[in-house]
Amino acid sequence: MEDDFAQWYTDVVKKADLVDYSSVRGSMIIRPYGYAIWENIQSVLDRRIKETGHENVYMPLLIPQSLLQKEKDHIEGFAPEVALVTHGGSEELAEPLVVRPTSEVLFGEHYANIIHSYRDLPKLYNQWANVVRWEKTTRPFLRSLEFLWQEGHTCHATEEEAAEETRKMLEVYAEVVENYLAVPVLKGQKTEKEKFAGAKFTLTIESLMHDGKALQSGTSHHLGTGFAEAFGIQFTDKDGKLQTVNQTSWGITTRLIGALIMVHGDNRGLVVPPRIAPKQVMIVPIAQHKEGVLDKAYELKDQLSKVARVDIDASDKMPGWKFNEYEMKGIPVRLEIGPKDIEKGQVVLARRDTSEKIIVPINELETKIPALLEEIQNNLFEKAKKHREEKTSIAYNMDEFKTNLVENPGFIKAMWCGSEACENFIKEETAATSRCMPFEQEHLADKCVCCGEEAKHLVYWAKAY
Amino acid sequence: MEDDFAQWYTDVVKKADLVDYSSVRGSMIIRPYGYAIWENIQSVLDRRIKETGHENVYMPLLIPQSLLQKEKDHIEGFAPEVALVTHGGSEELAEPLVVRPTSEVLFGEHYANIIHSYRDLPKLYNQWANVVRWEKTTRPFLRSLEFLWQEGHTCHATEEEAAEETRKMLEVYAEVVENYLAVPVLKGQKTEKEKFAGAKFTLTIESLMHDGKALQSGTSHHLGTGFAEAFGIQFTDKDGKLQTVNQTSWGITTRLIGALIMVHGDNRGLVVPPRIAPKQVMIVPIAQHKEGVLDKAYELKDQLSKVARVDIDASDKMPGWKFNEYEMKGIPVRLEIGPKDIEKGQVVLARRDTSEKIIVPINELETKIPALLEEIQNNLFEKAKKHREEKTSIAYNMDEFKTNLVENPGFIKAMWCGSEACENFIKEETAATSRCMPFEQEHLADKCVCCGEEAKHLVYWAKAY
Ligand SMILES: [Zn+2]
Ligand SMILES: [Zn+2]
Repeated sequence: MEDDFAQWYTDVVKKADLVDYSSVRGSMIIRPYGYAIWENIQSVLDRRIKETGHENVYMPLLIPQSLLQKEKDHIEGFAPEVALVTHGGSEELAEPLVVRPTSEVLFGEHYANIIHSYRDLPKLYNQWANVVRWEKTTRPFLRSLEFLWQEGHTCHATEEEAAEETRKMLEVYAEVVENYLAVPVLKGQKTEKEKFAGAKFTLTIESLMHDGKALQSGTSHHLGTGFAEAFGIQFTDKDGKLQTVNQTSWGITTRLIGALIMVHGDNRGLVVPPRIAPKQVMIVPIAQHKEGVLDKAYELKDQLSKVARVDIDASDKMPGWKFNEYEMKGIPVRLEIGPKDIEKGQVVLARRDTSEKIIVPINELETKIPALLEEIQNNLFEKAKKHREEKTSIAYNMDEFKTNLVENPGFIKAMWCGSEACENFIKEETAATSRCMPFEQEHLADKCVCCGEEAKHLVYWAKAY
Repeated sequence: MEDDFAQWYTDVVKKADLVDYSSVRGSMIIRPYGYAIWENIQSVLDRRIKETGHENVYMPLLIPQSLLQKEKDHIEGFAPEVALVTHGGSEELAEPLVVRPTSEVLFGEHYANIIHSYRDLPKLYNQWANVVRWEKTTRPFLRSLEFLWQEGHTCHATEEEAAEETRKMLEVYAEVVENYLAVPVLKGQKTEKEKFAGAKFTLTIESLMHDGKALQSGTSHHLGTGFAEAFGIQFTDKDGKLQTVNQTSWGITTRLIGALIMVHGDNRGLVVPPRIAPKQVMIVPIAQHKEGVLDKAYELKDQLSKVARVDIDASDKMPGWKFNEYEMKGIPVRLEIGPKDIEKGQVVLARRDTSEKIIVPINELETKIPALLEEIQNNLFEKAKKHREEKTSIAYNMDEFKTNLVENPGFIKAMWCGSEACENFIKEETAATSRCMPFEQEHLADKCVCCGEEAKHLVYWAKAY
């Protein structure tokens, strides 16, 4: 993976049975193992979305082109990458339909229909859906023609309430990504240049991959009243006055699976954090033809299924093949049990994260396994955090900036004057972009790393996926 | 609803907040209440799909036109109703992409990639997805340009194993629809004319709506080797011989919500069976401005949330408005509590299905409410079953057939010779179609109801959605 990270990634997603390709350019088949990881992410996040008062809805896939054009900035952002349906039922359509790249405009139209009074607010909707963006170069999970996501869309009586919602949902994302995917995130605000087309401001969680590139892992947008004005989403306030709502939108995608792969993976393949792993423990019987081995292995499977997601491979393949296979798939713990283990009343547990092997008495497994899974979860997070810290450097001028990017690619912390010209210059010179202005601002210097003018913000920069 | 059932339906789906319309012709917005019903159906069915050994996957939305054309019968069945993407990213595509109307061909291509040996079989995949079919006339849930569904696609070593799977999944559908949606179903096989394009045979569950029209509520297809031959899905059997797999596919859709509405609804609106109801009990405080009423109402909500899905409407709207609203939404039980009830240590429970009001001591609620919900569930099923029986008649000749359809519209049981000519004749003369040859065959007569030739099967006929 050190030589050619891109190739390593492509190999792992295929060999770990996460995806397969089809004759559809740039789209992926998400295979059972990949989809089970997505279902686990969905389940954790959906619970939080509901607990914070949101309701799920479902909007149409196809959007009339004219509707997409209602908000100027929005269409400018998405027009170059839409797929157009021009024929339906063998006939040419009077107006082409856009396959949704995102659903702001449909929510806008719907909200205008159903919101009338301050009593109707806030409206807190979310949808789980597929979206299509016509990307030229694609990679499974990271950038594909079609991907799966959730998109939250909310309406509020005031700008401040919408700002509160924008922050709240970013915190929900941060919590899920850190505590379940074991991926540390940097929370901050996007610059004007990098914010969502049509938004007032965009908050983001950014994570750092093994190769030192950043991945935007979730965004939350304060839309202000822009869409609401374009769509006429108005309400009568308590004083009988007509007001325009403030809106937010926020989303995470199947991209998170890409983050998980690129943060935790190693030369033996995938490493899946236990809390999100479809299978947490894989039992591999040793010398399974010997009397009693398979019986005991199945007995352990039943017993341990009470405390973890356990599977067994009792196929006639060699143990060595099985070891490789489940290491490639990143299953957190392998449990080996053979005739000698049974004699001694013990098993061997092999940790995927550290390769460590531990001998554990069978009667301690029910407490030892959940504890070990938690330990692995924490270790993966701490390891990723340490990696990020090692790959985060400071630059006071452009020479340092460029040197750091070459010698220790990762996040570069540098002060910025606030001008788009400097962002553009840095991007052209180094291919790094501003990832965010972190919530935790530091005053590293008085001057912009690029132009030397007065610095306004600390910015994290990086090359990014 | 007796005067104009179609209008009643359109009103109910809108007034009960199940759907809203958008500027996308023929597509619907599924609102939170409608989507919550769908999530409950999904959750029940997904558990069974997994328990029967299936795994969820996700296939691309867009299918190259040439791939869809690989299986002749299939493309003939779907070509007239596909939506075509001809432009992507501002450029015209070399080959148009079809928005999936169903995913047989993508599964076919994928299976050909991943199946090689008898050890790879069976492959039991399912996906939850949206599909698009270019319907001319549309109605929410029943027939729309886009709908949500699950589609199972499986590969087996033998024809018999595939037949077994086809039957098993139909039984899963029947169980879910009867036990959760409280909709009685008729299980049987489609005629050649009505079977799925490209299938060997199609099994179906058919249910009868309040107006005497039938609704196909779920289908399970034995695909034989047709698709497998077109896509080259072959495996080496235990003797080293190359064989072609046998396949099945099976699906249910958001249509089931239409069935639920049209089977249980009445002139006051929707009636949702408790097991599938997003909210089972709605608490309506009476004279809520009086001291202690709201406190007690919230206390009950907390307490009863342990045994049922309970909500409260403590808004300042009048109780009469609330009664109407939650009757329209079909919430199974309304709990009224006012100052006098509190004094007496009781509440009033109002059943949505029978309108009956029952006075229940507060300390009995935790046992009484689950029992009442079960009673309502059973009552809805029995009522629907009785309705279906009353609306099922026998015809021995075409005069009886036509008279029955006018005087008691519903299922008509009649013998059939097996010829498509008779099916076509009956459809032209009466607008009724063959719904299925039920698994429980009866020998009502020796002769076909239409042509008088030797009868081969008992068929249920009906006008259908
Ligand atoms: Zn500057
Ligand atoms: Zn006949």
